[in-house]
Amino acid sequence: MLGELRLPEIPPPEERARAEAAAHHGRLTKPAGALGRLEDLAIWAAGVRRHPRPKVERSVIVLAAADHGVATRGVSAYPSDVTAQMLANFIAGGAAVNVLASHAGAEVHVVDAGVRNSALDAAAHVAKVREGSDDMALGPAMSRDEAAALVERGIACALEHCAAADAVGLGDMGIGNTTAAAALTSALTGAAPAQTVGRGTGIDDARYALKLGAVRDALALHAPSGADPLGALACVGGCEIAFLAGVAIGSAAASLPVVLDGYPTTAAALVATALSPGVADYLLAGHVSAEPGHRIALAQLGLEPLLDLRMRLGEGTGAALALSLLRAALRIPHEMATFASAGVSTAAAELRPES
Amino acid sequence: MLGELRLPEIPPPEERARAEAAAHHGRLTKPAGALGRLEDLAIWAAGVRRHPRPKVERSVIVLAAADHGVATRGVSAYPSDVTAQMLANFIAGGAAVNVLASHAGAEVHVVDAGVRNSALDAAAHVAKVREGSDDMALGPAMSRDEAAALVERGIACALEHCAAADAVGLGDMGIGNTTAAAALTSALTGAAPAQTVGRGTGIDDARYALKLGAVRDALALHAPSGADPLGALACVGGCEIAFLAGVAIGSAAASLPVVLDGYPTTAAALVATALSPGVADYLLAGHVSAEPGHRIALAQLGLEPLLDLRMRLGEGTGAALALSLLRAALRIPHEMATFASAGVSTAAAELRPES
Repeated sequence: MLGELRLPEIPPPEERARAEAAAHHGRLTKPAGALGRLEDLAIWAAGVRRHPRPKVERSVIVLAAADHGVATRGVSAYPSDVTAQMLANFIAGGAAVNVLASHAGAEVHVVDAGVRNSALDAAAHVAKVREGSDDMALGPAMSRDEAAALVERGIACALEHCAAADAVGLGDMGIGNTTAAAALTSALTGAAPAQTVGRGTGIDDARYALKLGAVRDALALHAPSGADPLGALACVGGCEIAFLAGVAIGSAAASLPVVLDGYPTTAAALVATALSPGVADYLLAGHVSAEPGHRIALAQLGLEPLLDLRMRLGEGTGAALALSLLRAALRIPHEMATFASAGVSTAAAELRPES
Repeated sequence: MLGELRLPEIPPPEERARAEAAAHHGRLTKPAGALGRLEDLAIWAAGVRRHPRPKVERSVIVLAAADHGVATRGVSAYPSDVTAQMLANFIAGGAAVNVLASHAGAEVHVVDAGVRNSALDAAAHVAKVREGSDDMALGPAMSRDEAAALVERGIACALEHCAAADAVGLGDMGIGNTTAAAALTSALTGAAPAQTVGRGTGIDDARYALKLGAVRDALALHAPSGADPLGALACVGGCEIAFLAGVAIGSAAASLPVVLDGYPTTAAALVATALSPGVADYLLAGHVSAEPGHRIALAQLGLEPLLDLRMRLGEGTGAALALSLLRAALRIPHEMATFASAGVSTAAAELRPES
């Protein structure tokens, strides 16, 4: 089945670096484990980066945009034109992700993975093989070959543009893409559409009914499943989701932490791990969005989100905030004193019954 | 009762600035409310700062340290000497809070609010009225006059050292201080010691039994309550907690956001709001710690923590991470484009039955 896709080898994280990182954390001037998930992050990143004390000096948010045929059904509160308009906004630096990436010290790498309007191609990195997907409820969103080509372009993007960075965040933009995320999550987890379809950008009951109906129709039409992840991606996915699945695979192959954002990027991670199970060790869930299906997708990946700020914007905004936390966590072992160096006592005398 | 304490006036947050901030957020290129708590933070901070678009350019973490008489009972996994050793570590820049404050662009203002060893007084800001508290299970931790003096020194610290900043974080250090936090939380919320006493730096069952017994004994001895918050603070509080209660009051009076850290700083906020209810509008819960009583104290204050990273270190480490998020949230309205400026469509056409 996967013979159609050229997938890079993904090494397991390095256990020795992890163990060294854990031991070093035990020597720092704090009670064991008192930094909670910051310590977990630093130890995890050591294995991923194959170095006991990695840093996040340079990070990249790969922000892929594409249009979705299913959007013509009215599943979003916004018209499809907004995808191209926001692509222009990302390039101009006026979107939320630009601000939050700047806050995190991360670069935003804007990719046109299938936006219908090509007027911006000179400014964006162009990876598209088609101008958006077709309506999944009427037929496949794209062909298997197109899905495979987009995954491969995502892998190439990671190897070319991210390999010199220390961490990668994923970001998505595409009017209609939480519909694709819901369909893929149902396909790859078995959860019912009523659990995976949410309100996206904030839709009313009428649009919600259309969205739920589109996902149900698409699942009935294609019967996608985890047994054929490339087929599921082609039938009910989206172009930016396919590209981002490739970015996750390529980043893992380059020993980089991959920070997920919201529902569409997590759907991309479901596809990536189904295609290439070793990717799972490289994933960090940046946040959990307000989309109910996002929790289902994260649970399937075994990931606990770092942040829960009721964000539901996408673009990589949650990934940007998480990259900032990751950067902070990785500074700790470099900059904190040890008990020995600071002359701090490590523990009280043992309690004795008479004391 | 409060005649013993000179408390500054605290104005309510400015509704007009809040409303302007909310209206501006509705014009930015994102679905309404899609940045979740980041938007809430920016709108809240507008009211607090009395400006529709405040910034966090300068922030200060006031880190107050003190010793606790109750520590001689063996309620902590660490000896009391560690308080002074960590004070030295904060001054040298080797503690976790130094790293995380640097990450957040925040200054650490280290205060000796009652550390037993005074060798470091030349390097720390000294606010102490006594070298640590007495054992609360045998008598009052300190006198009412001493508690009042520490609160007033905290207020003065905020007005002198924080008023030029844009936000204040609270940090604590004191071996034994989660015992005082638990006793104060029980006193001011009515929760039973079994709910408010936790494992602190990570104690075993024997030390936990001692800690629980000390809190029960202290509550039985003093019968502290919210009807007399200064009395509760004097009987079962701690010197750094008293000082930090004052910092919260003074910061609120100076129209500054006050970012809480873990359990002891939240106990200080319980005292501050009991003394001066207007403080409540100025508080932000930076995170929820692994201490079970922390949730009880936050619930009493009506605060939802921003982060939940299973941290249990104190020092202002959680406040530092939250200050970084606050800074990011306040950049959004300054740096994001509006729908009009970016030429982005605001909504899809209304659905019509025949469409």
